[in-house]
Amino acid sequence: MFHETVTAQGHLIDTQTLDRVFDLIADRGATHEVLQFDIGKRGEDESFVRMKVTAPDRETLDHVIDGIIPYGCEVESARDARWAEAPKDGCVPEDFYSTTNHQTQVRIDGRWVNVGKQRMDAVIVLEEGDPICRKLRDVRQGEQVVCGAGGVRVTFDQPGRKKQTFAFMNNDISSERRVETSLQRVIKIMEEVRKKGERIVVVAGPVVIHTGGIEPFSRLVEAGWIDVLLSGNAIAVHDIENCFFGTSLGVSLEKGVPVEEGHKNHMRAINRINHAGSIAEAVHQGVLTSGLMYSLVKNDVKFVLAGSIRDDGPLPDTVMDLVEAQEQYANELEGAGLVLMLSTMLHSIGVGNMLPSWVHVVCVDINPAVVTKLSDRGSSQTVGIVTDVGLFLQRLADELC
Amino acid sequence: MFHETVTAQGHLIDTQTLDRVFDLIADRGATHEVLQFDIGKRGEDESFVRMKVTAPDRETLDHVIDGIIPYGCEVESARDARWAEAPKDGCVPEDFYSTTNHQTQVRIDGRWVNVGKQRMDAVIVLEEGDPICRKLRDVRQGEQVVCGAGGVRVTFDQPGRKKQTFAFMNNDISSERRVETSLQRVIKIMEEVRKKGERIVVVAGPVVIHTGGIEPFSRLVEAGWIDVLLSGNAIAVHDIENCFFGTSLGVSLEKGVPVEEGHKNHMRAINRINHAGSIAEAVHQGVLTSGLMYSLVKNDVKFVLAGSIRDDGPLPDTVMDLVEAQEQYANELEGAGLVLMLSTMLHSIGVGNMLPSWVHVVCVDINPAVVTKLSDRGSSQTVGIVTDVGLFLQRLADELC
Amino acid sequence: MFHETVTAQGHLIDTQTLDRVFDLIADRGATHEVLQFDIGKRGEDESFVRMKVTAPDRETLDHVIDGIIPYGCEVESARDARWAEAPKDGCVPEDFYSTTNHQTQVRIDGRWVNVGKQRMDAVIVLEEGDPICRKLRDVRQGEQVVCGAGGVRVTFDQPGRKKQTFAFMNNDISSERRVETSLQRVIKIMEEVRKKGERIVVVAGPVVIHTGGIEPFSRLVEAGWIDVLLSGNAIAVHDIENCFFGTSLGVSLEKGVPVEEGHKNHMRAINRINHAGSIAEAVHQGVLTSGLMYSLVKNDVKFVLAGSIRDDGPLPDTVMDLVEAQEQYANELEGAGLVLMLSTMLHSIGVGNMLPSWVHVVCVDINPAVVTKLSDRGSSQTVGIVTDVGLFLQRLADELC
Amino acid sequence: MFHETVTAQGHLIDTQTLDRVFDLIADRGATHEVLQFDIGKRGEDESFVRMKVTAPDRETLDHVIDGIIPYGCEVESARDARWAEAPKDGCVPEDFYSTTNHQTQVRIDGRWVNVGKQRMDAVIVLEEGDPICRKLRDVRQGEQVVCGAGGVRVTFDQPGRKKQTFAFMNNDISSERRVETSLQRVIKIMEEVRKKGERIVVVAGPVVIHTGGIEPFSRLVEAGWIDVLLSGNAIAVHDIENCFFGTSLGVSLEKGVPVEEGHKNHMRAINRINHAGSIAEAVHQGVLTSGLMYSLVKNDVKFVLAGSIRDDGPLPDTVMDLVEAQEQYANELEGAGLVLMLSTMLHSIGVGNMLPSWVHVVCVDINPAVVTKLSDRGSSQTVGIVTDVGLFLQRLADELC
Repeated sequence: MFHETVTAQGHLIDTQTLDRVFDLIADRGATHEVLQFDIGKRGEDESFVRMKVTAPDRETLDHVIDGIIPYGCEVESARDARWAEAPKDGCVPEDFYSTTNHQTQVRIDGRWVNVGKQRMDAVIVLEEGDPICRKLRDVRQGEQVVCGAGGVRVTFDQPGRKKQTFAFMNNDISSERRVETSLQRVIKIMEEVRKKGERIVVVAGPVVIHTGGIEPFSRLVEAGWIDVLLSGNAIAVHDIENCFFGTSLGVSLEKGVPVEEGHKNHMRAINRINHAGSIAEAVHQGVLTSGLMYSLVKNDVKFVLAGSIRDDGPLPDTVMDLVEAQEQYANELEGAGLVLMLSTMLHSIGVGNMLPSWVHVVCVDINPAVVTKLSDRGSSQTVGIVTDVGLFLQRLADELC
Repeated sequence: MFHETVTAQGHLIDTQTLDRVFDLIADRGATHEVLQFDIGKRGEDESFVRMKVTAPDRETLDHVIDGIIPYGCEVESARDARWAEAPKDGCVPEDFYSTTNHQTQVRIDGRWVNVGKQRMDAVIVLEEGDPICRKLRDVRQGEQVVCGAGGVRVTFDQPGRKKQTFAFMNNDISSERRVETSLQRVIKIMEEVRKKGERIVVVAGPVVIHTGGIEPFSRLVEAGWIDVLLSGNAIAVHDIENCFFGTSLGVSLEKGVPVEEGHKNHMRAINRINHAGSIAEAVHQGVLTSGLMYSLVKNDVKFVLAGSIRDDGPLPDTVMDLVEAQEQYANELEGAGLVLMLSTMLHSIGVGNMLPSWVHVVCVDINPAVVTKLSDRGSSQTVGIVTDVGLFLQRLADELC
Repeated sequence: MFHETVTAQGHLIDTQTLDRVFDLIADRGATHEVLQFDIGKRGEDESFVRMKVTAPDRETLDHVIDGIIPYGCEVESARDARWAEAPKDGCVPEDFYSTTNHQTQVRIDGRWVNVGKQRMDAVIVLEEGDPICRKLRDVRQGEQVVCGAGGVRVTFDQPGRKKQTFAFMNNDISSERRVETSLQRVIKIMEEVRKKGERIVVVAGPVVIHTGGIEPFSRLVEAGWIDVLLSGNAIAVHDIENCFFGTSLGVSLEKGVPVEEGHKNHMRAINRINHAGSIAEAVHQGVLTSGLMYSLVKNDVKFVLAGSIRDDGPLPDTVMDLVEAQEQYANELEGAGLVLMLSTMLHSIGVGNMLPSWVHVVCVDINPAVVTKLSDRGSSQTVGIVTDVGLFLQRLADELC
Repeated sequence: MFHETVTAQGHLIDTQTLDRVFDLIADRGATHEVLQFDIGKRGEDESFVRMKVTAPDRETLDHVIDGIIPYGCEVESARDARWAEAPKDGCVPEDFYSTTNHQTQVRIDGRWVNVGKQRMDAVIVLEEGDPICRKLRDVRQGEQVVCGAGGVRVTFDQPGRKKQTFAFMNNDISSERRVETSLQRVIKIMEEVRKKGERIVVVAGPVVIHTGGIEPFSRLVEAGWIDVLLSGNAIAVHDIENCFFGTSLGVSLEKGVPVEEGHKNHMRAINRINHAGSIAEAVHQGVLTSGLMYSLVKNDVKFVLAGSIRDDGPLPDTVMDLVEAQEQYANELEGAGLVLMLSTMLHSIGVGNMLPSWVHVVCVDINPAVVTKLSDRGSSQTVGIVTDVGLFLQRLADELC
């Protein structure tokens, strides 16, 4: 039998960390014996556990240790992280360490060093001597990559945060809730994020336009609450179509009814922007004179429109090379304190993949399944709100502007 | 071959009546030959068709005629309605005429007479000499019942109405719409209905309470906009629970979070009302001092709470005998000009079954499937709105009060 | 400051019991100090905690103790349960103990006695000297009722069960799963339940008929797998309509298309059964000759059809007095080892309210929201499956028959 | 007043064409007067209408004529199509004719010529003398583009098709249907398409993998039923992850439960394919030895994986340049007789945009909203099926292989 002594410290009970660690040990075919357990005497105290993990063979033991490291466990016989060379571009050794979105440290020369650019599903490489997360596709041949979980440790979110988000855990995402309560919470987060000088990023889908969000969203932009819009081709097309023709995907926003032949308006709108050369040019030339995109341009708020297979047109501003689009998204997310996801599963999942776990995320969608799916993937800071996104933006702008 | 000459007059094209009639004739194994067709020259003109329907046997022909009568067709060789005797209570002959919710007439002694108490899935009997709709279970042995479709004709909704509701037909029910537009339409209907002195009936589920609707709904009650509430046990329990304990099904309406052990509050609330004897008594004794049920009692607005198999308690006001509950619902629906269905499929379907097709129906639900289902069953006057019902009531009360 | 010493023993970590108890103490304004904590050394060992709970006043302390008792905590200074008299029929003192669906014991003369007829939202009374759960409405004036949480303790589900149902917890209910895996699990549960001689109860909605479930469901009935069907009027009407006319709510089951005028068939079907007197009579008279209801009658499998406000007709077998219907449901649930809930939220919630937590529940619905909702209310034994219920029944019958 | 005489011939009643034309004329502020109407005497006969359309000004009249042309109307004073020059790349005159997905003809030198490469939202240009549809972005400066609706006419789908798909129109998309019926219909379409030598294209999302579709889908591939798979990165990653590690997005397909740390498996899978160079290379090198992608490679069935903003990795086969991906999709859709859309809204909408209206489309999804949305956009040949896609594929393969 092979064994290893492991310790963990923190809010082990109320974050259910200990429960999960025990589960994982058993699931992977090992057993544990608790050698020491100091439970926090009071609610605010941390607990400490020291235990012996035993497995029938070395491989199983390593597998278990690999598994529990991400939960904040440390092997007493700690060793430095092990590095191995990338055999060719975009390829790493089979046992590479794949990151989570939680703050990670690697042990280098006996010291624990924070890993930069934290994101999930990345590998850890050295950049100018500092460990950072890098997407697999960006790894270059010959780079040193962390392999195995030895010498890696993960810090979970700070204690005390649990309570704050308690109400929004999985089984509490429901259309049967009073929106006003969630709205106040979102406002408080926005104010705190602003105070800390962090960025507020909006990820939004075209439903924002269809449900009447142009006006309140523009007000938020004008009042300086939004730092960047990450979205796709559709939101811009429908917003611009509405400016030019009063319809959005052929539906009159005023009357709420489809205008016959109105489905052609979005192609007409794209054609006009093509003439101008870009959305910003259309604003500068006096062609585009109102709407959300207009407000963004006028207020120097950046937007990134990522392409998708279903795009018509697209607008000249839409980035159809997705490697480039992902880079632009990732750049805009640096320094983000809050990401507001409004009615778009596609772009929200894309953004979620790029975010470290400590960034606040607020998902608003009328479909509870979307909110649940995004919250499951999101950070522990996620606030999920099931409501009409147009009415939600109206209320948000009324409160903040 | 057997044949019959049939005529129809009205907006045959723009209500798709003619299309459906042709379909039905073919589906049932007969053929038609158009003898005369005068199309309305202009949009507002009616069309007229005269055609020969041919079938291989008498039975098929009768089956076809039975089928097209409800679409407004008349057999030229018109005859009086045929009456037959109910053989015992709740039983009628096999070929009884089963009503739709459209205005129906029967031919008696050569005269076309309107059928009273129009509703779907009923039989037609004589009450003090006048033909009326009666539920099958209320038919008594020996009563005369209309059999076959001969001597029956159906008047569709008035022309011109189609346009008004065009936007809300099946494929247009969507969460991707601006609520403000629908809201203004509902307000206009409410004002028209009031002007005509017709009743406004609300059918509501407990989601109204959970999403923050108590306050705006109470305002509408106080301002005299609501004539009766048709609902079940749950809405009342959750409203009263909120008055007593600040929770609704154990969830704090203020904080939006489940209160530990709060799930017991609804039984505590029921117990208190049991002590008082009824909701109204609890108001009069000063036990129940706020909320929706309080407002209803204080403003003498009637409510009917129909029981269901899932009811805990129930409150003493809940009618657990459903025959009685259906009677009470039906009575309250007499004279209704508008039924507002808020987040309850169960009670809304119940009410829909009782309504003639010319009553306005507005369905509001956050789930598009519910709105579609109710609209499919509803009258042609149905307005379907997919949104957050709490926010919707807030906006409605802000506009009307 | 007031305090009380409390102990708890069991799988406190891996059932998250300890976490919840700590939360509740803090939420209700008290603090805790751990005096002793013996963690289970190995996975299968129980843990033990002894702690001092301190609150600023007696009332808060009592509120906290009330709250943590249902989690299995015991007050060291244990006392007998306190009984008080019901002041009138259906009314109990304000501080009555409201039950959960977990196995409960009350302390009588220093001994812990199991409470019979366990169900949620009930009160505890004495029946022939034994404590049992009773619905509030059935309490009679003068009966002794347990008040406060002193002298009450709750046993959670046995350890080891967690693993079995792990896969079906909230955030794992998804349409994105392979049904075959869940199917095998359900079959295993059915075989175990049968081996133990417990009853298998099916709660089913009319979707079972529409999606082609008549044939496989009938096969399960004939093979003796089903002990009782709890449902409403609709499933029987649509099944019988299909036997008589080949349609279900007017839709041809063979062709999948609405038959024009077919919506009248359900009234015709009800009329025929009214003539016969009951479903069983219609079978005996040779009127009803196939289908699900036919199979139930032929195989002496009982069914209870509870009425609802939306029922047309209803059939003579439908119980429109809901107090009576709830009694019949509850009687049929005695001795149940498994409840199979098929596409009916209404009846499933009704049944869920009546069940103790240790009965296996399997929910099958195509709508993930329904499965989530039922699973949240259900016992910890709930298996939730999101799939097409017709295909599921087909596969189940193919495997079992 | 300005007027124009317009004629239309065909199944004007039973396709509701006439109704829509009348609506459109009124909506756009004009009036009509019917000069001649010959109704088809029998069901199979075509109707003919000749009418005078009158408008207050030339612009309104042109707007009306533009609108009714796509419904098959022809202006009696027919003229050749008008061509104008594209002022620069990707830009066309404001009044360009934007295509629908119905068969379109343009009048050139007095002759009506079919437009090639029919798709929606395109412009019409001349390619080697023949009119074809071209995407706006592919128009080059100086090309001649059809402007206005004069000299353009649209042929609707052939008569008789309506009946076939009647059951699957909007309000009939429902989870409450028997799948077996739809299944037989799909099989019949597949056999017909094969007999005609047309291609069968599958558009599929990763849910196909999660719900157990690998095995039946592979059987269909091996039996030669599938010509190409159009999808994204995820389906391939999850299929390959399952081959390598037995999980799909970290969930064991065998046991249906999340494997701890299994979420890392998809990155491990991508890394292995990166090592091999491509999916096909991984098969040839004996690295990838089972699954759907394996079957496609082994059977020389092509696949196109279009990138998306949410892609991790991606696999080397994934086309991250969406202009290129759309081209590849469009090429594979040439000659398609049937497109089977399985659980992916994103790629299905993309494909739908590229299809002419006469290609059969079958959409299968467990979510009725997705099926409705796709059917609304799709051709009139769309069959929508709401069911479990894994079980559906199982049944399909059982029947066909």
